Amino acid sequence: MTDTAATLASVPGVAARDAATQGFVFNHTMLRIKDPRASLDFYTRVLGFSLVRRNDFPEAAFSLYFLALVDPARIPDDEAERKAWVARLQGVLELTHNHGTEAQDGPVYHDGNSEPRGFGHICVSVPDVRAACARFEQLGVPFQKRLTDGRMKEIAFIKDPDGYWVEIIQPTPLD
Amino acid sequence: MTDTAATLASVPGVAARDAATQGFVFNHTMLRIKDPRASLDFYTRVLGFSLVRRNDFPEAAFSLYFLALVDPARIPDDEAERKAWVARLQGVLELTHNHGTEAQDGPVYHDGNSEPRGFGHICVSVPDVRAACARFEQLGVPFQKRLTDGRMKEIAFIKDPDGYWVEIIQPTPLD
Repeated sequence: MTDTAATLASVPGVAARDAATQGFVFNHTMLRIKDPRASLDFYTRVLGFSLVRRNDFPEAAFSLYFLALVDPARIPDDEAERKAWVARLQGVLELTHNHGTEAQDGPVYHDGNSEPRGFGHICVSVPDVRAACARFEQLGVPFQKRLTDGRMKEIAFIKDPDGYWVEIIQPTPLD
Repeated sequence: MTDTAATLASVPGVAARDAATQGFVFNHTMLRIKDPRASLDFYTRVLGFSLVRRNDFPEAAFSLYFLALVDPARIPDDEAERKAWVARLQGVLELTHNHGTEAQDGPVYHDGNSEPRGFGHICVSVPDVRAACARFEQLGVPFQKRLTDGRMKEIAFIKDPDGYWVEIIQPTPLD
């Protein structure tokens, strides 16, 4: 273990990994959405996600859409195989559509960033944050925070169709 | 492209991947937490996450904790290298602590599953959901839904220290 890992491991509350958690994967984050057509457009066209699984529950009047940033050629054709493959991925976004919300006027869901607060945002890292933001501007995507706003010039926040914040970062420092 | 991928690609709203999104990674999900000691204990001891980065902003009175389900031996020692490495990971959980909330009485944040709704849950997939849930019971972790509750016998929901729901699944069908 490096010195830095040791420092992080000594933060109050942090415990060593229990062998019983081997194979655990942070698989997905679930957000409720008003209109699947608008959200699927945003996450596939603007952010490059692929729809990897859809589950419809007509008797309970909801549908689930699972999206991931993967090569669509990798999506297994067999349904059982695909379900297992999706459950082993990291970084899946699950969108829940309660049927009928798309016909309501105005926003349906709460983005978590005004009271009562809780969930804050999801984040997509990109190779070139300036190029990504220029493309979002061209596509007419709404911004919560442009790179030029505020003190943190290296990060931006765009908004999805329900108003959920999507942070955009790049791994390396800006020139 | 397989037939199934083609079916998924034909869902209204779904667009083909734009080459401009190559290299995009769904990096993290951010949740606000009341008490980092309690949350770090839960995510490291109970779920096996490692603390991979911490950022303190004392002048703005908040701290950020980044956790991931990775081998801690892989955490880079150099700070700039570690920051870039974390930003390229999938499945990172960012916990935001606004200093002082840990001294407040009762819950501080909203879990998203009562009005106003929005965010729903995060999900950890595990190799054996029955063994994982038996261990959570032994550890005294609160459940939102046990495997035996309700109609969906293959999934459980536990609750983190702020009451956020964590779904527990296994990729393969239960015997």
